[in-house]
Amino acid sequence: MKPAASSRVLLTADISIEGVHFDRSYMSAADIGWKSMIANISDIAAMGGTPLYALVSLGIPDDTEEEYVLNVYHGIIDAASDAHTRVVGGDISRARALVISIALYGETREGSEIYRSGAREGEYLYVTGTLGGSLAGLELLKSGIVDETNEIFFERHRRPRARHDIVNDIIAQFAPTSMIDISDGLVSDLRHVCEESGVGACLYGNEIPLCKGLEAYASRKGKSPLVYALASGEEYELLFTSKKELVDTIHLYLNDVPIRLIGQMRNKGYTIIIDGIEKELQDYGHDHFAK
Amino acid sequence: MKPAASSRVLLTADISIEGVHFDRSYMSAADIGWKSMIANISDIAAMGGTPLYALVSLGIPDDTEEEYVLNVYHGIIDAASDAHTRVVGGDISRARALVISIALYGETREGSEIYRSGAREGEYLYVTGTLGGSLAGLELLKSGIVDETNEIFFERHRRPRARHDIVNDIIAQFAPTSMIDISDGLVSDLRHVCEESGVGACLYGNEIPLCKGLEAYASRKGKSPLVYALASGEEYELLFTSKKELVDTIHLYLNDVPIRLIGQMRNKGYTIIIDGIEKELQDYGHDHFAK
Repeated sequence: MKPAASSRVLLTADISIEGVHFDRSYMSAADIGWKSMIANISDIAAMGGTPLYALVSLGIPDDTEEEYVLNVYHGIIDAASDAHTRVVGGDISRARALVISIALYGETREGSEIYRSGAREGEYLYVTGTLGGSLAGLELLKSGIVDETNEIFFERHRRPRARHDIVNDIIAQFAPTSMIDISDGLVSDLRHVCEESGVGACLYGNEIPLCKGLEAYASRKGKSPLVYALASGEEYELLFTSKKELVDTIHLYLNDVPIRLIGQMRNKGYTIIIDGIEKELQDYGHDHFAK
Repeated sequence: MKPAASSRVLLTADISIEGVHFDRSYMSAADIGWKSMIANISDIAAMGGTPLYALVSLGIPDDTEEEYVLNVYHGIIDAASDAHTRVVGGDISRARALVISIALYGETREGSEIYRSGAREGEYLYVTGTLGGSLAGLELLKSGIVDETNEIFFERHRRPRARHDIVNDIIAQFAPTSMIDISDGLVSDLRHVCEESGVGACLYGNEIPLCKGLEAYASRKGKSPLVYALASGEEYELLFTSKKELVDTIHLYLNDVPIRLIGQMRNKGYTIIIDGIEKELQDYGHDHFAK
């Protein structure tokens, strides 16, 4: 294909391997395909780009039924179509475990690329959507407790949405100085931005948007919902910094997706303010959830 | 990066999996990396393009030593550097078997793309380099017979060259109507061209260039060297069709690589002429070598 004039090429790749990134026992073939593609689409979105063409390489164990492989592929195609992305090629091979390796080509206008390294002291930190649902879903699916009251958590874990459809609105309204998608978890991914930008950050704990139902779920578990929201990975929400301060973000939605101001960048440190008390953020890291 | 004006984007992906595409017992880590990248570079070259940027995703078994992984990566980088291609990203994961998944971005000038589907009746068939060495090397390596007299075969199997460095000369001199790289074997890859172009072909058996030492090797095995040359895969030589007939190609070299006229496209059929006798080509297919 021919790239648009004055466009910049963006490339990303993501590999998903059975037993490492997904488990067939609680993810359907189509879910597995969907999430593999969403991870790539989200990466391009986080760079401020439009995903356009995908290459899909599959490694298939000998005992896999053809219908299963087709369903993985359907999930991939569904996620791609949702972002107007075409699968234009790839490769296929036998393998010992199911492997899905996707490379995605995207474009952005010259000068519109957004990196992780652009955050500066004093800028505001925003996040799209609500957090914590994917981790709650994973926890429930692993434990085998599957009932309808938790449907939203399963949906978040199995069929996450990428935010490619609101990236241009975010760029227009916020002119982000840095952006990342939440794939490892808010605390981990914010740390990536801080490290690459050479700054610190302070999160406003009471402002972090929680997945619907998460407070009740965490309460039954005897935990704070915040620990889920801070650690939950594979959310594919966008975390970005901006010079623009929107004090009242409670009612700010872009295409039905809430945008919330959840912190501020500092010259150093890595903290969270909860109920007026500031604490070190490492106490809320991923290790609390290591199994 | 910014694509050149009036360029066309080419994308290719190739996945290599331990136990399917390679065996650590007779391939070094660097060889495995080298071949994985060469397969992709060769694909872009066969489309008439220049390989530019690569994404490398690795799946690494838990018991793999760090030095081993670094050596795989060195092989990948060496092959990429040789073609002035930059590895610009990728992904890494745990895996049960070693997985190397590479996606490659290349460019060609608008109108210069070459497809497999462009061959027409009456056109001439050309091949670069010499054939058969990779299969002889594989046979020897599998049998454990490794001695210096067979060095060229090992080199062909472990460190094949892609022909990216002469593609532009081929385009300038031959204006190829179709092109493919020999990854499955001359007979199989020519069949791909015939099927996609809707034509037949007749190979000139006595003109097919044989890897140095292949006649002596095949003779010791009691076989014709031609069966190696026809079936040997992973050669990464270029096979192309052209309206141009160069009767004397014995002395034609591009950058020290021989170019030979080895057949002609027909409206149908799939044959080979050996010592003046025309035979069906299927008798020389890959199955003769199935283990």
